[in-house]
Amino acid sequence: MPLPTTVEGFVDGVLARDRTVLARAVTLVESTRDDHRAMADELLQALLPHTGRAHRIGVTGVPGVGKSTFIETLGTWLLDRDHRVAVLTIDPTSRRTGGSILGDKTRMQRLAVADDAFVRPSPSAGTLGGVARRTRETMLVCEAAGFDVVLVETVGVGQSEVTVRDMVDVFLVLALPNAGDTLQGIKKGVLELADVIAVNKADGEMRRAAERARNELRQALHMLAPTSPHWSPEVVMMSALEADGIDGLWDVLERHREALTSSGELEEQRRQQLVTWMWSQIEDRLLASLRAHPGVRGLLPEVERAVVAGELTSGRAADQVLDAYARRDD
Amino acid sequence: MPLPTTVEGFVDGVLARDRTVLARAVTLVESTRDDHRAMADELLQALLPHTGRAHRIGVTGVPGVGKSTFIETLGTWLLDRDHRVAVLTIDPTSRRTGGSILGDKTRMQRLAVADDAFVRPSPSAGTLGGVARRTRETMLVCEAAGFDVVLVETVGVGQSEVTVRDMVDVFLVLALPNAGDTLQGIKKGVLELADVIAVNKADGEMRRAAERARNELRQALHMLAPTSPHWSPEVVMMSALEADGIDGLWDVLERHREALTSSGELEEQRRQQLVTWMWSQIEDRLLASLRAHPGVRGLLPEVERAVVAGELTSGRAADQVLDAYARRDD
Repeated sequence: MPLPTTVEGFVDGVLARDRTVLARAVTLVESTRDDHRAMADELLQALLPHTGRAHRIGVTGVPGVGKSTFIETLGTWLLDRDHRVAVLTIDPTSRRTGGSILGDKTRMQRLAVADDAFVRPSPSAGTLGGVARRTRETMLVCEAAGFDVVLVETVGVGQSEVTVRDMVDVFLVLALPNAGDTLQGIKKGVLELADVIAVNKADGEMRRAAERARNELRQALHMLAPTSPHWSPEVVMMSALEADGIDGLWDVLERHREALTSSGELEEQRRQQLVTWMWSQIEDRLLASLRAHPGVRGLLPEVERAVVAGELTSGRAADQVLDAYARRDD
Repeated sequence: MPLPTTVEGFVDGVLARDRTVLARAVTLVESTRDDHRAMADELLQALLPHTGRAHRIGVTGVPGVGKSTFIETLGTWLLDRDHRVAVLTIDPTSRRTGGSILGDKTRMQRLAVADDAFVRPSPSAGTLGGVARRTRETMLVCEAAGFDVVLVETVGVGQSEVTVRDMVDVFLVLALPNAGDTLQGIKKGVLELADVIAVNKADGEMRRAAERARNELRQALHMLAPTSPHWSPEVVMMSALEADGIDGLWDVLERHREALTSSGELEEQRRQQLVTWMWSQIEDRLLASLRAHPGVRGLLPEVERAVVAGELTSGRAADQVLDAYARRDD
């Protein structure tokens, strides 16, 4: 099958689960060129009726918690059970050099070569919003291509957890078995986002420490507001390295999905996410329009000069720029 | 002296270093009421010529690193040397209840009651941008009131380190003496922002671990791009609890300031920060204007309906909203 040159060709190829077309479609979605963006927008609109059927799972954890090993283990476990698995990463600090693509693919050796898996490293560096938009659109393309489990991994920089939480159905936090000091094993502010916590490395000598961590985390979760009226966050133990406890974890994830589906909350959550995404795109484009406005461009040098000279507060300067933008139709 | 009711009254009181007026001025700056905002804008414009003379120091570190003890120790050390010290905190998750104000003040017992210190907890919860703007404006008011050292503490949630880095002259990262695993003692992405790293708790049995951590951190810093052409990040050891190593740390902070001042980089950095702040305020106000626009308000319900019904991609929806906003002068 030759590579498509039209939106229809891309749609047909993605729906036919053609891997080469899929990879090209994702490249199109990630492109920042204006003509590519226009084509990608059309493609996404056409694929929209074929999206939304995957189990969307966000995965986070502090460095050293074993995210890559976990995703490789869970991913192959799912492949063995006839799932088709897409693995996406959000990393606003990533520079996609040859090295880092290789890095991402080699740390998931079996998934990278499996027919029913699709591993895509983070789009190259940009704003978190820009990187996230492209990852979210890639998720939609993967769903149209029949992947029924999408794992979205965050490397935990800045606000990336909140961003990923806003695009998935369930948020899984991997924790270290640091007995007596769980705060060191989970980034502050992330516990509140967790639907499921898995204490990793619960093997060998660490097993008892993992049990203590699990109990402490359960107690900590008791003191937090639940993430949903239909779900209380659960804590499980596992060993990604020894592929131990994966079935128990998957069972919890399935129960979470069932609880949210039967209550109608999953549908409502996805609705809210779509609105959130619309707003983040409005924001990005509005600022681009302001920066391109002739009146604003004419005014900016003088306003910035006055601000850096200490003659004008940044608040008043902002007012002047917005006044100039308001006069754009004169 | 009666409390001021005019901007002139506030200006006089702040410049006269009247603590009660200062506290009221900060409350004014933190207010979200429109009439308060207008008055705060005027006040800041009037105080602007009296700002900029403080050493602005950002402080961060993972939970458990001992930030409060450190700030109490450094702050009282500075008071003993005739400095006037303001301590501000950025915490977008804070709810300013009676409890948390008390919490903030009691964890800095000596500073909280010292005549030449001003401790202000984070403005209550809001967007990081909103909280940060108010903290930055409070910093300016404190400078006008003659505080020559401003410590801006971040609790390390989300992007707050980057935000604080954008408002200070030097960024100090406190680290734990976790030998062999420095990544656990420093949040990912923060090392790159550090001008100075202080390994805390370098006392008693932890001293040798702290030495190892210091050496590892020095090696790690060698692999990173320096934060400035005129400064290579330095690592020191200290014990905030025993007030040991504070003089060495302050010496490093003074040398950093001298290096950046004599090279002109400090001035340039502050210029760029002012421009960054102007832009973040433009962004906030622009979105508020879009949401208030009648055409946008009329269109939004139908667009949001189509997005959540899966009939319209969020990208195309964003385009429609922006088109409506563009017609605002019709």
